Amino acid sequence: MNSPIINPIFANLSLDRSAERPVYLQLADALLSMIRNGQVRSGQKLPGSRELAHLLKINRITVSKAYGELLTQGWLESAVGRGTFVSSHVADHDPEKLKAIAASPPKIPGFTFEANDYLQPILETALPDLHLDDGYPDPRLAPLKEFYRAYRNQLSRSGLYPKFGSYGNPAGPYPYRQALSDYLNTSRGFKTSPEHILSVRGTLMGINLVCNALINPGDVVVSERPGWRRAEHNFLHAGAKLIGVPVDEHGMLVDELRKICKQQKVRMVYVTPHHQYPTTVSLRIDRRLELLRLANEYGFIIFEDDYDFDFHFKHRPLLPLASADEHGMVIYCGSFSKSFSPAFRMGYLVAAENVIEHLAKVRILLDRQGDHVLDNAMADLLNDGTVQRYLRKTLSVYEERRDFFCNLLQTELKDIIKFSVPEGGMSVWAEFDPSINLEELSKRAFKEGLYLSDGKGHQYPEYQSNGIRLGFASSPLEDLTRSVEIIKRLIS
Amino acid sequence: MNSPIINPIFANLSLDRSAERPVYLQLADALLSMIRNGQVRSGQKLPGSRELAHLLKINRITVSKAYGELLTQGWLESAVGRGTFVSSHVADHDPEKLKAIAASPPKIPGFTFEANDYLQPILETALPDLHLDDGYPDPRLAPLKEFYRAYRNQLSRSGLYPKFGSYGNPAGPYPYRQALSDYLNTSRGFKTSPEHILSVRGTLMGINLVCNALINPGDVVVSERPGWRRAEHNFLHAGAKLIGVPVDEHGMLVDELRKICKQQKVRMVYVTPHHQYPTTVSLRIDRRLELLRLANEYGFIIFEDDYDFDFHFKHRPLLPLASADEHGMVIYCGSFSKSFSPAFRMGYLVAAENVIEHLAKVRILLDRQGDHVLDNAMADLLNDGTVQRYLRKTLSVYEERRDFFCNLLQTELKDIIKFSVPEGGMSVWAEFDPSINLEELSKRAFKEGLYLSDGKGHQYPEYQSNGIRLGFASSPLEDLTRSVEIIKRLIS
Repeated sequence: MNSPIINPIFANLSLDRSAERPVYLQLADALLSMIRNGQVRSGQKLPGSRELAHLLKINRITVSKAYGELLTQGWLESAVGRGTFVSSHVADHDPEKLKAIAASPPKIPGFTFEANDYLQPILETALPDLHLDDGYPDPRLAPLKEFYRAYRNQLSRSGLYPKFGSYGNPAGPYPYRQALSDYLNTSRGFKTSPEHILSVRGTLMGINLVCNALINPGDVVVSERPGWRRAEHNFLHAGAKLIGVPVDEHGMLVDELRKICKQQKVRMVYVTPHHQYPTTVSLRIDRRLELLRLANEYGFIIFEDDYDFDFHFKHRPLLPLASADEHGMVIYCGSFSKSFSPAFRMGYLVAAENVIEHLAKVRILLDRQGDHVLDNAMADLLNDGTVQRYLRKTLSVYEERRDFFCNLLQTELKDIIKFSVPEGGMSVWAEFDPSINLEELSKRAFKEGLYLSDGKGHQYPEYQSNGIRLGFASSPLEDLTRSVEIIKRLIS
Repeated sequence: MNSPIINPIFANLSLDRSAERPVYLQLADALLSMIRNGQVRSGQKLPGSRELAHLLKINRITVSKAYGELLTQGWLESAVGRGTFVSSHVADHDPEKLKAIAASPPKIPGFTFEANDYLQPILETALPDLHLDDGYPDPRLAPLKEFYRAYRNQLSRSGLYPKFGSYGNPAGPYPYRQALSDYLNTSRGFKTSPEHILSVRGTLMGINLVCNALINPGDVVVSERPGWRRAEHNFLHAGAKLIGVPVDEHGMLVDELRKICKQQKVRMVYVTPHHQYPTTVSLRIDRRLELLRLANEYGFIIFEDDYDFDFHFKHRPLLPLASADEHGMVIYCGSFSKSFSPAFRMGYLVAAENVIEHLAKVRILLDRQGDHVLDNAMADLLNDGTVQRYLRKTLSVYEERRDFFCNLLQTELKDIIKFSVPEGGMSVWAEFDPSINLEELSKRAFKEGLYLSDGKGHQYPEYQSNGIRLGFASSPLEDLTRSVEIIKRLIS
């Protein structure tokens, strides 16, 4: 058989039989490249598969598969009995445009957007070995083996199917909510049932979810000054009007809150009553009762952020506001991130039953549901007491570190910092002498291998301090000693 | 020593030495109860610890510890040399109020809220053994052992510390973004680097995050009709004006979109080009190119939801829009929920570098960061090829199920349903004869042990159909046979 007349550009197609990529895909790529380059045009007939196979010395089936590929993708069209053509759909498109396909995504997009001030850049500096951080736990103490065993059991006991074969309750799997309910009732004086509980991925999701579900633009949200900026950024992002109430050594000045309530409708009060962030003080009992009374009188939500309930030394902790909330004014938020590790993104909200139902509906929009495998693994560790034993053990380690660290501060740095020994939590609120520039100290410390906050996040137009949090819980005693030595050396 | 005069009410305090609860806490509870009941009043002096110990026949230290407990909690006050008193802070509070402490959270809260129509109740019906679902994967095929080994290795290789000892990048851990980037470049014709990638917890979080970061109230968002309601609910929740564009057998009618663009400013177009949801059709190449051209001309964002890229049969799938996006108009969203199981809440966004930076800042507000342990475990499975091998294996299983199922539909139900054999994905879009009431069929099927959608979610005022998705991928062949038998029996 003689070859029929064939456009010579097809003879230049280069195929590499030794390459890993199948020859039919190499041919499809080459043909696509010719279409993109404008070498073959919309409507142009391609050689028959027999002819092209002969020309390229390949199997006819290889050509058919390459054509099939491009037919599927819409680059080619075929007409029965007439042959295969470059698709008429590509007619209108500039070959220059087609050529650019598979470029890297550009640095700047083709659409515009605005970023609000409160959206902060990511600082991806890993903590150095020495760190007086914001108050992190020490994950070296965490029951890792128990945890991944529980995780494996969840995956393998009955397999992923049918338990995890379809979507579940956005409020969290029932066994986990049951275990949490038991745990909270025992440890915090609650009287909840699983219907009062919604699993979230950490405190921030709890705050974001409540903002998404219950805060409208223009609503007034009150928070502590100084307070937790990440929570406040959420309120601002929800369009709330943010009002600050000062904090003294007994927590939020509830009298100031009363004045605000008399002047305007308050939608929500965000409060950290157990160990106030950042100052670590506890909200006194009379202020707690008054806060509940005000909420009831004025109809505002209390968002109780109880991020480190489990770490209170010597005495039982004050019970949360939620344990004394008879009218359903409180949305309580707890977390395992401060108990285990920031890597465990597990928290929960506790509220009246129909609030939880509402939050669950909004949660679907956010991320459909949490990680039910992880949640159920944690349920197993709550039910067999692993979590409780771990928290007891950790509590005494942290208490030792607190005592050791506070003693160090008192003996080594008493001339330049003021602080109170915190009754709980994982950090000391240290107010430095005004002569000390914290931003500079932080930078110089980092060069010496010690992380220290620069305190910028605690400043407000109406609240200025030279205070930072010095987290002691994540560091062994010798690291605490070395850290304080570095500070002492840098300021002398 | 004779007992001094002591208020007889204290003699009635009952303590149980055999109880598990420490005696000092029993005493603290009893005293607190007397304060709450008004039996002892604000300012009243309590017996000295020596006297009360004598009276109750307990150790004096036990009394001191009980007093210490209540002093810490603020219920008592002490004055040096004068004794211990009920705190003046509780003076203003009605004993009735104090009594109610530790009530169950009420069903209805003390604050009000409104729920929008699009917020749907949770249907917590577990799928029965037989189900023609929305298009779920079969997690029985998933590489579970490999997965939990990788998870354990992440936890134990170097322990949680220091790798997971503090917070990380909200865009996801770098090794995971690197592995994803390699995987996407190989499988989808992208040319990304880790900086173009942000890890999210499934497609819905990707959509929610983009709404939170890039959509303002009043912005116009265009989606397909019929389309994915959960995505649309997010647009509505963000305050967007939602406009639908009809879909035919080649996907979204891009000509209709052009008309809209000429009339008003469009901020974003949400599209499922690979296998349109719910109809499973593919967006034709000319419409793809035109969509990209329009985005560039009018400056709108294309949100490309590519939820089941990996499951395309016989031919290589059409490459995503994002692979041909030279101007950074596309935000691409992929997911492992449709590859592994809904229990794996893992997805990712791909976009221009500074869009990813912006999204990461907003993500901090949402949930701080994802589960970096899980992300890095998945990175290991991507890097060693486990994911890729699994997807190849699954693809052939699903193809067999598709062919078997479509054959069944054709032979058993051809008189009452119209459908096209889907080129990919995990479900068939089946349009039932108008004489069949799908809501009733769904209910009757459920009684027979078969889940079928009622199709309500696919109805719009301007788009009505009698179609539902029949997911075939999660069911073995014998289950598909039994499911079709049930439908046939019910409609005859």
